[in-house]
Amino acid sequence: MNIYNRALKTVTPYVAGKPIEELARESGLSAKQIIKLASNENPLGPSPMAVRAIEKQLAGINRYPDSNYYELKKKVATKLNLGIESLVFGNGSDELIDCVIKGFSEPGNEVLSAKSTFLEYEIIAKVNNRKFKAIGLKRLRYDLDSIAKAITKKTRLVFIANPNNPTGTYVTKNEAEKFLKKIPSEVVVVFDEAYNEFVDTGSFPDTLKYVKNYNVIILRTFSKIYGLAGLRIGFAVTRPEFAEVLNTVRQPFNVNSLAAAAAQAAIDDYEFVKKTQELIWQEKEFLYKKFIEIGIKFIPSAANFILIEVAPSSEAFFAKMLKLGIIVRGMSAYGLKDYIRLTIGTHDENLAFLEGLKTIKEKK
Amino acid sequence: MNIYNRALKTVTPYVAGKPIEELARESGLSAKQIIKLASNENPLGPSPMAVRAIEKQLAGINRYPDSNYYELKKKVATKLNLGIESLVFGNGSDELIDCVIKGFSEPGNEVLSAKSTFLEYEIIAKVNNRKFKAIGLKRLRYDLDSIAKAITKKTRLVFIANPNNPTGTYVTKNEAEKFLKKIPSEVVVVFDEAYNEFVDTGSFPDTLKYVKNYNVIILRTFSKIYGLAGLRIGFAVTRPEFAEVLNTVRQPFNVNSLAAAAAQAAIDDYEFVKKTQELIWQEKEFLYKKFIEIGIKFIPSAANFILIEVAPSSEAFFAKMLKLGIIVRGMSAYGLKDYIRLTIGTHDENLAFLEGLKTIKEKK
Repeated sequence: MNIYNRALKTVTPYVAGKPIEELARESGLSAKQIIKLASNENPLGPSPMAVRAIEKQLAGINRYPDSNYYELKKKVATKLNLGIESLVFGNGSDELIDCVIKGFSEPGNEVLSAKSTFLEYEIIAKVNNRKFKAIGLKRLRYDLDSIAKAITKKTRLVFIANPNNPTGTYVTKNEAEKFLKKIPSEVVVVFDEAYNEFVDTGSFPDTLKYVKNYNVIILRTFSKIYGLAGLRIGFAVTRPEFAEVLNTVRQPFNVNSLAAAAAQAAIDDYEFVKKTQELIWQEKEFLYKKFIEIGIKFIPSAANFILIEVAPSSEAFFAKMLKLGIIVRGMSAYGLKDYIRLTIGTHDENLAFLEGLKTIKEKK
Repeated sequence: MNIYNRALKTVTPYVAGKPIEELARESGLSAKQIIKLASNENPLGPSPMAVRAIEKQLAGINRYPDSNYYELKKKVATKLNLGIESLVFGNGSDELIDCVIKGFSEPGNEVLSAKSTFLEYEIIAKVNNRKFKAIGLKRLRYDLDSIAKAITKKTRLVFIANPNNPTGTYVTKNEAEKFLKKIPSEVVVVFDEAYNEFVDTGSFPDTLKYVKNYNVIILRTFSKIYGLAGLRIGFAVTRPEFAEVLNTVRQPFNVNSLAAAAAQAAIDDYEFVKKTQELIWQEKEFLYKKFIEIGIKFIPSAANFILIEVAPSSEAFFAKMLKLGIIVRGMSAYGLKDYIRLTIGTHDENLAFLEGLKTIKEKK
């Protein structure tokens, strides 16, 4: 007889970007000497308005959070011009992936996505005793035609990271709309838009418009543009009946009260959002230019990170950078062993990375 | 074809204790005029040491939490005299219930617990497509003999809330040990000890001692005695192989970084723990005395709440108290419609409740 859930045998646990404190412990470097460009975090820190909101809330953390996060929901609904009944919040959008899988599929059903995409779709599907099928990228982009063809009677969910993590590529409006028209009525399409606010192209789909007429769930997060990754808060936008399902599945106190207060304030922090966008867009152009100068291959990105070719070995490059106190992300776990993923940092951080590149090249 | 997980049809969503802000909105009372004795929160606020630790951490919330919460784990392990490999942290112990069910059972397996216990065992089991079987309490106490007899080949998990929420009763050391000896080798017993630090009786089991020789998982929380309910952090203690399973199941960033910092500080806040215990124990005696004087039936409690008989209707009593600005918890959802659950508050809060009792009685 089995004591463990046998589905876990096929699960490879997620390996996170190396924390600064961990490298400090291991290397003897001080935290201030270390540059982390590994987890697509906001290099400008958290939204200052969010920090002030947390400070105000601190004395009340002995109380459970409002399990309906009423004030937060109202605020985000107004901002997105939606009804509050279309919103569901989660402990990061990670938790909402779990809720979506529990709510819109059953054990043995199939979850579809791409190879070389956010690893949690596969992990969470398998932990929930669902089958997971991954369709290869085509020129490092989601291949929606092949995904549509791969749908079977067992398929209930399709996850599309848009822009895709870790490639930075995206599905266009035309591609998304063509795809949605092909989807059977019992399948739900999830657009995971964690990097939505960094997109600077007109051909990106406005998925909020699909919620009414298609089985669509959109995931967004406060981790990236608002600089609140440590607090864990994301949300889903979908039609009210679907939101009700997610609310039945999620735990009542899934979002901590400081995260709720911070998100409610951050969403009004236009100045911080603008400052972050400008930094990322400017530094992205700067890095592209430098990469072209140096002769480094990279994939143009719609997000705040860039996939960079460092063949023959992603992990060797990662290790060399680590010795210089720079944490990037090796891509072997994503099936992209020739690449690393670089989070766009402040100008100084990016310069340090470029300097590191030079050092590594010279040592060859 | 079904688009939703059909298991959800049998799930009654959890209804949380009414938040102060919600009553304020509905009643026109100010938040300061409202007394909440509904959710077993610490009436003294959060641990002051925890609050200071959060303040120090605030500037870094743009970074993801350490997915191994190394520093926190080391601290708690030392405090409990355990190896760090025996500990797993969660987004409240609620999330760990979900992890335990996913890790130690499969869809279609059976989860066993009591009637009139923490509602999340049933909800989370069902959301995960597991079967749930509830054994009636015996004189408002867990009936471990009947639970042992109810174990079938499909049973994988037994949840024991100890002390039990909402009755405040507990399973003794002798009962627990007799029970563990009867459990088949493929069944895991979970002792949910959220109220452990409020127990003032010598016959309570020291379950940490069972971890080595039995299939036992212990759940603890920072929500109650440490006053951190809003932050969401709990932990599991179990043998290393079991902890590894839970770490595979849980999400990498399940615990937010402020909660981790707060918990790490709170566990050293002996003064706050002592102050809280003294308040609760003193006020419990005070309330018992008053209830006897007034002629109100109550169940002696090993926790920071008291189950009180208010027949014929829990919900009517709840509504009357609400009009007085006092939030208690009706017990219909727990199958105890003659009772309310009163969280022990500060002396002033308890006096206000007693005053409310008088007002309601006089109006009859």
